Amino acid sequence: MADPALVEALVACGHDLGLITGAADAARYATDATRRPDVVPEVVIRPKDKAGVSAALALCHRFGQPVAVQGGLTGLSGGARVRPGEVVLSTERLTGLGAPDADAMLIRAGAGVTLQRLQEAAAEQGLCFGVDLGARGTATVGGGIATNAGGIRVLRYGMFRAQVAGMEAVLADGTVVSSMRGLEKNNAGPDLRQLFTGSEGIYGVITEALLRLHPAPGLERNALCAVEGPEAALALLRMLRGRLGGLLSAFEGLWPEVYDGACGIAGTRPLPLGSGLYVLIEIQAPKGLIEEDAFEQVLMDAYEAGLCGDIVVAQSRREFDGIWHLREACPEFTFSLGRLVPHDLSLPLRAIPEFLGRAREAVEAVDPVARIYVYGHLADGNLHYVVKSEMRAEVSAAVNTLAARMGGSITAEHGVGTDKKPYLSLVRSAEELGLLRRLKSAMDPAGILNPGRVIGLDD
Amino acid sequence: MADPALVEALVACGHDLGLITGAADAARYATDATRRPDVVPEVVIRPKDKAGVSAALALCHRFGQPVAVQGGLTGLSGGARVRPGEVVLSTERLTGLGAPDADAMLIRAGAGVTLQRLQEAAAEQGLCFGVDLGARGTATVGGGIATNAGGIRVLRYGMFRAQVAGMEAVLADGTVVSSMRGLEKNNAGPDLRQLFTGSEGIYGVITEALLRLHPAPGLERNALCAVEGPEAALALLRMLRGRLGGLLSAFEGLWPEVYDGACGIAGTRPLPLGSGLYVLIEIQAPKGLIEEDAFEQVLMDAYEAGLCGDIVVAQSRREFDGIWHLREACPEFTFSLGRLVPHDLSLPLRAIPEFLGRAREAVEAVDPVARIYVYGHLADGNLHYVVKSEMRAEVSAAVNTLAARMGGSITAEHGVGTDKKPYLSLVRSAEELGLLRRLKSAMDPAGILNPGRVIGLDD
Repeated sequence: MADPALVEALVACGHDLGLITGAADAARYATDATRRPDVVPEVVIRPKDKAGVSAALALCHRFGQPVAVQGGLTGLSGGARVRPGEVVLSTERLTGLGAPDADAMLIRAGAGVTLQRLQEAAAEQGLCFGVDLGARGTATVGGGIATNAGGIRVLRYGMFRAQVAGMEAVLADGTVVSSMRGLEKNNAGPDLRQLFTGSEGIYGVITEALLRLHPAPGLERNALCAVEGPEAALALLRMLRGRLGGLLSAFEGLWPEVYDGACGIAGTRPLPLGSGLYVLIEIQAPKGLIEEDAFEQVLMDAYEAGLCGDIVVAQSRREFDGIWHLREACPEFTFSLGRLVPHDLSLPLRAIPEFLGRAREAVEAVDPVARIYVYGHLADGNLHYVVKSEMRAEVSAAVNTLAARMGGSITAEHGVGTDKKPYLSLVRSAEELGLLRRLKSAMDPAGILNPGRVIGLDD
Repeated sequence: MADPALVEALVACGHDLGLITGAADAARYATDATRRPDVVPEVVIRPKDKAGVSAALALCHRFGQPVAVQGGLTGLSGGARVRPGEVVLSTERLTGLGAPDADAMLIRAGAGVTLQRLQEAAAEQGLCFGVDLGARGTATVGGGIATNAGGIRVLRYGMFRAQVAGMEAVLADGTVVSSMRGLEKNNAGPDLRQLFTGSEGIYGVITEALLRLHPAPGLERNALCAVEGPEAALALLRMLRGRLGGLLSAFEGLWPEVYDGACGIAGTRPLPLGSGLYVLIEIQAPKGLIEEDAFEQVLMDAYEAGLCGDIVVAQSRREFDGIWHLREACPEFTFSLGRLVPHDLSLPLRAIPEFLGRAREAVEAVDPVARIYVYGHLADGNLHYVVKSEMRAEVSAAVNTLAARMGGSITAEHGVGTDKKPYLSLVRSAEELGLLRRLKSAMDPAGILNPGRVIGLDD
């Protein structure tokens, strides 16, 4: 229960905080894309600017009021899901978006700007933003940075971390820390952007960023390939990397169950069932750099070398979009299966074939009727490993433990939030956790920011 | 003066610390590449392994003994220069180097491994390491990470930060923090690698790293172009980026005074004097990806579009190396001029032309007989701006203040150390400095690690 004196102080603080205090209006802030509602917040603070964020946090800090920080609510780890007694701080009204600076290749964006709006602003100037993911219409810049979001083109542009040229964040006590020079190189002391990126809101609230842009690719081609299985896919990847270098911009894996389901949603089946794995391959290149048929030629060589089976190469923008649509239908398909046990695993590439066999055994040992659905960013070693089972806790423990033992991680891109917190010690040593806690204590001594997520003062 | 009880405890601690206590042997640890000797350390600790680093730091922590952390001593900001009362902790014997893992594209390297040894190990497997710089024979992995070193191919591979897939560091109190999974993607909590990278040893001592490797380029070409001046160079850069995308691997600028001097050292002058600026351009590509003459064609188009004047394209490995030799002769030339006032500026690209004019005025206002020598990593906005003047403090204040006012930074890649500490507040706000100090206090509460560098507890 928020202290009425805090609510009064928020109302009286002189900033436009867009306060919501009624349960009906506040209901949509209860949870994230995991759709596991927990607690409807009593108060939602939606500041219009960084001064408002600063004032609101300073008050919460003074009152010892726990705060759930929210962006676009597309997270999949429960990081933004409200816990009892928390107020919400939403960045949804921090929607300022500068004009793209085509010279410096930068754009200034408020934390509440959606990824899609950012992408569209870049595209209008013949530029592109490097991170793309299915939730682009709702996911925000602030959430993307705070969770170091990944997506479909990490191979080419890196994760969100690589896009952040400048950042402004507010600490728990309201201190505004601005690092917005946006220089390509700047070694004038430790880089504070790195501290907040991927910290899931436990160290501070990101209010604005300077983000890197790239020239829009003059040439984009994609294809869908059938391969025997993960071993073959990795051999194909090595060959493509050798031949195409940095032009290779996506290499996504769809295992047959997911491919089939995605085809059902997309209403198209470019390749027949019967292969062990389906791989989406994309290249991006400046116009005129390579021969028109270079992509086909490389894929033909892969086919002739026995690295893949049937291939469908998109021959038009419509076919190109169609192949991507199939990929985007994957989460839609798995979500449609009802309540699932999701995992966002990172694995050393070479461990993937063995992992898949052992993970199936481990899951079936726990739940013989479990069904397994796998797809993901194969070149990054990032598998969305989804299990249909009623035995959530046991399945997750088995899968995450195996991934950690095989040198992987319990989360590649979705983050820890609340849901993966129980597994964090599988992949982080006591010394690492101790240091993360020391930093938390230094930056948020009262522990008001996102308590219960990632690591807290009492963990 | 180190406490004799500390020295006794170090001797008795049971680890091979390679202790040096005589002034004659310790003299070479007094300073870094700035060659400004200060204090010969009384004790040099050279642990053989991380357990030794941990034991030595735990003792120094207990005795409140200030420690100067040293790598290859190639730094240019005085970060490793010994201050009165300090002992030295050198990583020079942490020289373990694993075999390159061609599958995962990773290599495990101790902090004391030189950049050159690392590059050679990668090359033996047909791979390459992304960071290269003139001091490669002496600069070490640990120093490279601690200072987030840059060099000549940041444009293509990023700075040292981008190469670090895993890291082991020891905190001031001896705690070993190991984050060595080396995964492409891993969002299991805040990324501690980022905290130590570029922290110049104030937060901890890096002992080992997992570093990313890349396929060795199948094709490398370079050229030297004469251009009218910085405006023209930036237009040329935009054109090259548009045409070559990520294949562009270096774009270095040599202003005439430096070009002339470097030619003198190299004993060759590929292009006549008389142009405003000389630009070294390099591309790297996988074998067979682009046409044999694509590089020449793009440069020819640049020439015909009036973006550059005369061009010399290397036609053999010897000529290729010769052009790079010219670039590497630049610091050799400026060092040969005697005691100089160096600057390692970062600037927004578009500010460079105006900066150069205003900086000359500012320098000449301070010292009418000053001479100015400029070269650097032009595509990164990183100028090594070297002034021959007896008025060190006044010149540096003028140049750094102007760079900061024009949106730049006082150090792009060399770091702060001791020498740039007076200028740090030109580019970092009180809130940023406060947060850096909070972190220092959390990680090194006794303030024993590299005191007097970057930021300390009393700043």
